[in-house]
Amino acid sequence: MKVIVIGATGTIGKPVVEALEGRHQVIQVGHSSGDYRVDLASQTSIAELFAKIGSFDALLSVAGQAAFNPLEKLTDDDFNVGLQNKLMGQVNLVRQGLKTINDGGSFTLTSGVLSQEPMPGGAAISLVNSGLEGFVRGAAIELPRGLRINIVSPPWVKETMEAMGMDSGPGLAAAVVARAYVESLEGTANGQTLDARRFA
Amino acid sequence: MKVIVIGATGTIGKPVVEALEGRHQVIQVGHSSGDYRVDLASQTSIAELFAKIGSFDALLSVAGQAAFNPLEKLTDDDFNVGLQNKLMGQVNLVRQGLKTINDGGSFTLTSGVLSQEPMPGGAAISLVNSGLEGFVRGAAIELPRGLRINIVSPPWVKETMEAMGMDSGPGLAAAVVARAYVESLEGTANGQTLDARRFA
Repeated sequence: MKVIVIGATGTIGKPVVEALEGRHQVIQVGHSSGDYRVDLASQTSIAELFAKIGSFDALLSVAGQAAFNPLEKLTDDDFNVGLQNKLMGQVNLVRQGLKTINDGGSFTLTSGVLSQEPMPGGAAISLVNSGLEGFVRGAAIELPRGLRINIVSPPWVKETMEAMGMDSGPGLAAAVVARAYVESLEGTANGQTLDARRFA
Repeated sequence: MKVIVIGATGTIGKPVVEALEGRHQVIQVGHSSGDYRVDLASQTSIAELFAKIGSFDALLSVAGQAAFNPLEKLTDDDFNVGLQNKLMGQVNLVRQGLKTINDGGSFTLTSGVLSQEPMPGGAAISLVNSGLEGFVRGAAIELPRGLRINIVSPPWVKETMEAMGMDSGPGLAAAVVARAYVESLEGTANGQTLDARRFA
């Protein structure tokens, strides 16, 4: 399959690409590196990306920014980043990708554990992650041509925690998280939120 | 308690007001009628509302617009209406209301059944409703001063279905839905999504 990976050079994106290479034709897309570049917050940038790539079989989005900040310190800009980038950026990948994805193809987006398991400072991220999961449930039942859509909810990732200087003990290795994306791509699920902890 | 009802003249808002009157001081707020008016999509309008009302004990939001349209016909504007009005409008009622709500007070927002049970044409509404429920889960664990926040998820409402010329048989009466708001206001729940069907 011709598979687009958005966020291909990120912590989770890298092992996703590694898991797919050899079995699929992988198109690596990043914000500032990769075969192609995209700004998720820009509809124009997304349109240009799909115009360059042409038809494809699957898109895995392992990307998106949202702001972590205590509830009473969250600014309008903090909310807007999450809404325009991680939330609508991924929604717009689906809306625009629908025009050139091949029959029987699939989309896989990314939410995160804060959707269902909140933590202090995460209210805007919980909003974004839950909104994405709701969109995927809604979109799944309307997709034409045998298309599918799912979303992976990663927990805290070991490599991210290490990079932030946190105790990475409770984290899940990015390579394990990557298995959830492979399952969404190669399996038959539709409209599902895949908790990446299930693949440990 | 001094209770602000946003959307007080709407299909669900009216029986909410009726259920509270006599037991609480009810401030009725609408988009185009009521004791006060507010445009949920405007931070300025929300700020003016709270400035006029002063301190209060609880806010029930039974309001918010979002667009119903098939997935491949949903426009950027359709998404923006839901994001700016029903989603961020209600989030901003909480953010701004935090400044003047009394200790031990509560917020109650409104999502809807499409959050978890999608239907064709509802993808943008599923996104908005799920996002709101995620925000409530996240905000609940950060609220100071003994404050609480919950969200009511109404199913299809009998009176709405009648007004739309639909078979209202499966609908839940607005007066029953109103009980969920009363429970959120007078009970002890925090961070909960209250399925209004539970109150039938």
